[in-house]
Amino acid sequence: MGLLTGVLRPRLEATAHCDLPCGVYDPAQARIEAESVKAIQEKYQANEDPAFRARAIQIKEERADLVKHHLWVLWTDYFKPPHFEKYPQLHELFNKATKAAGGGEGGAKSSMDPQSGQQVLDYIAEISDIFWETKKG
Amino acid sequence: MGLLTGVLRPRLEATAHCDLPCGVYDPAQARIEAESVKAIQEKYQANEDPAFRARAIQIKEERADLVKHHLWVLWTDYFKPPHFEKYPQLHELFNKATKAAGGGEGGAKSSMDPQSGQQVLDYIAEISDIFWETKKG
Amino acid sequence: MGLLTGVLRPRLEATAHCDLPCGVYDPAQARIEAESVKAIQEKYQANEDPAFRARAIQIKEERADLVKHHLWVLWTDYFKPPHFEKYPQLHELFNKATKAAGGGEGGAKSSMDPQSGQQVLDYIAEISDIFWETKKG
Amino acid sequence: MGLLTGVLRPRLEATAHCDLPCGVYDPAQARIEAESVKAIQEKYQANEDPAFRARAIQIKEERADLVKHHLWVLWTDYFKPPHFEKYPQLHELFNKATKAAGGGEGGAKSSMDPQSGQQVLDYIAEISDIFWETKKG
Amino acid sequence: MGLLTGVLRPRLEATAHCDLPCGVYDPAQARIEAESVKAIQEKYQANEDPAFRARAIQIKEERADLVKHHLWVLWTDYFKPPHFEKYPQLHELFNKATKAAGGGEGGAKSSMDPQSGQQVLDYIAEISDIFWETKKG
Amino acid sequence: MGLLTGVLRPRLEATAHCDLPCGVYDPAQARIEAESVKAIQEKYQANEDPAFRARAIQIKEERADLVKHHLWVLWTDYFKPPHFEKYPQLHELFNKATKAAGGGEGGAKSSMDPQSGQQVLDYIAEISDIFWETKKG
Ligand code: NI
Ligand code: NI
Ligand code: NI
Ligand code: NI
Ligand code: NI
Ligand code: NI
Repeated sequence: MGLLTGVLRPRLEATAHCDLPCGVYDPAQARIEAESVKAIQEKYQANEDPAFRARAIQIKEERADLVKHHLWVLWTDYFKPPHFEKYPQLHELFNKATKAAGGGEGGAKSSMDPQSGQQVLDYIAEISDIFWETKKG
Repeated sequence: MGLLTGVLRPRLEATAHCDLPCGVYDPAQARIEAESVKAIQEKYQANEDPAFRARAIQIKEERADLVKHHLWVLWTDYFKPPHFEKYPQLHELFNKATKAAGGGEGGAKSSMDPQSGQQVLDYIAEISDIFWETKKG
Repeated sequence: MGLLTGVLRPRLEATAHCDLPCGVYDPAQARIEAESVKAIQEKYQANEDPAFRARAIQIKEERADLVKHHLWVLWTDYFKPPHFEKYPQLHELFNKATKAAGGGEGGAKSSMDPQSGQQVLDYIAEISDIFWETKKG
Repeated sequence: MGLLTGVLRPRLEATAHCDLPCGVYDPAQARIEAESVKAIQEKYQANEDPAFRARAIQIKEERADLVKHHLWVLWTDYFKPPHFEKYPQLHELFNKATKAAGGGEGGAKSSMDPQSGQQVLDYIAEISDIFWETKKG
Repeated sequence: MGLLTGVLRPRLEATAHCDLPCGVYDPAQARIEAESVKAIQEKYQANEDPAFRARAIQIKEERADLVKHHLWVLWTDYFKPPHFEKYPQLHELFNKATKAAGGGEGGAKSSMDPQSGQQVLDYIAEISDIFWETKKG
Repeated sequence: MGLLTGVLRPRLEATAHCDLPCGVYDPAQARIEAESVKAIQEKYQANEDPAFRARAIQIKEERADLVKHHLWVLWTDYFKPPHFEKYPQLHELFNKATKAAGGGEGGAKSSMDPQSGQQVLDYIAEISDIFWETKKG
């Protein structure tokens, strides 16, 4: 296993996502992409080179797409009727979170403002709280 | 932010990967897919239905592809010459890890044995140790 | 324009989906893929050749993925808060529809029974009714 | 089935496209993407924000790719030798239609003029006429 | 540049494909994938392990898709009206070649017989002859 | 087979790349995409139209991604431990080549200078030399 103790290594239980289903789910997948969205927006603000900005816009689009995809997978494939009963806000929360990552007004696709990226991260944190609570239960 | 204390929530710093580059990298992306590979292998062993097994083989293939992709990104985009100097085993480690996730003899694509999935996870843990050590530095 | 009168030609208004957004949405995109899912299930039942069946399982998986994707896009990108207020069943309907197209128990991915494909088509028809009603309003 | 009568609902027979083949084909798939291409061009003309325009160019590119793909599928997978005999213009029609959706001079990828999008729609309408005539036969 | 003389190195002029267009086209792209299709069919015949065969069927499907895609790109994007005039067989040749790579009766997707893969290679060789002749012109 | 003698036709042995593995590998796949990258950079320099340039940036990004992918496949799937022993520079060569095709400083993704595309082509030529030497052995 090697050089390092477990101290440094992430403690996250394996959790993720396909549709066998394999049973592995993890909101970290959405969060990582959303961190990327926000980081791209920050780099965009700090760099006026038009070619860089064109690349930033394009890459942010793809990353925000991944955010939406990972969230949709959690909403449809991980969460079950009893969860929706226990957390009645869950449908709307996912709908808002995926809209926030999209191309509508103020969405992280249509905006270059890092606050729109942060908004997505905040929604994902809320979802993540609920997700881990259901895991504990 | 909501319901839960930070205790339950993953502690991982946001870290991931595109090629703007956004500067966000995280071995968790490879690990989550590798966990899926192993979980699929276990479900395959426990279920003899031929249609289920066909789906398992197909989906494992895609997940193992993602493992390879996430590792290649780390190897090329995150790690820099000084890292390779400090960790001379790094090239070979990545080469072995991506081979272990592939279709060669004993690789996680060509094998339905969960031990081949575990082998990939072990390599990713080694890479992750080094990754987080470079982050600390 | 050519040979035929308009009689034969589909009457559907152009309606679809990207996330510019272009403003074009159409439940037909999900429906066409779901028809494919069901047709593949029927062909699977009628053909015992193992290679054919392996291909059918694989291709159905992709088509069911597209069903889910097209539905998610409608749910997040087309439908807005006032719609969800007017049709309070909409969240659950989409959640059920995408689950029905997925890999859970009885879902169209995990089942080779054309009835599971028909179930997805029925949900899409319900969604389509609501969609066109909102267009009329 | 629910709320609405059939009046409002699209009447299109299910028709589409994979390569099992499932036997389901539908020119509506190409048409919907082409409507999107044209709508994007119109929105581009109406909005001078450079970030919006960069996104529009990128998304139009993808949508035009889908147009080409759906048309190629019809040309290769749906139409058979007797069709090409009966409609000797069919090869050239498809070649022109896919070129019109592409990146050559005046093509809908390289042009931001909605007329180039309309040109693609016109070709698709011609193809659709022939398609539905062969279905009737 | 390194170790070897030019003797060993492939002599192919760079030639390929996107839709900027970059102007680079090369039938080798289709041919390489078709070689893969045929090689997979041969390996399938030589190996009765069901998991291997499932993977072979799945991977062949993807490779045959790439064959079709690369051929469609040549047909639409590289060849121009004067070419179609000079080589009146070209439309039908491409139509047959892409059908041969597809899922119809005897096509390389639906068949595990290496002869179906060879048939695709033969068509590509014909197309390649014409392609290189137009380059010389 | 048709019109032309073998003289004109490329002589390259079929060689490519999936992960069955089919056993077919060919550095030409990476090279063709890298030629495209460089050609796009040249066209970008010669054309100041902003919409053209936006498309060029976007398409180059995809092509450079393909270069990286094809190279990673060779590094992991084709080359084996004895090759790395015989060519100790191979790891670093591939790492440099994929970095040169990427988004780091001076990389072909982040630069519009055709020299960055040429740099990638030079690395691929070195790799190709070694590849064909191992084939001869
Ligand atoms: Ni999974
Ligand atoms: Ni990144
Ligand atoms: Ni749209
Ligand atoms: Ni189909
Ligand atoms: Ni090109
Ligand atoms: Ni291969």
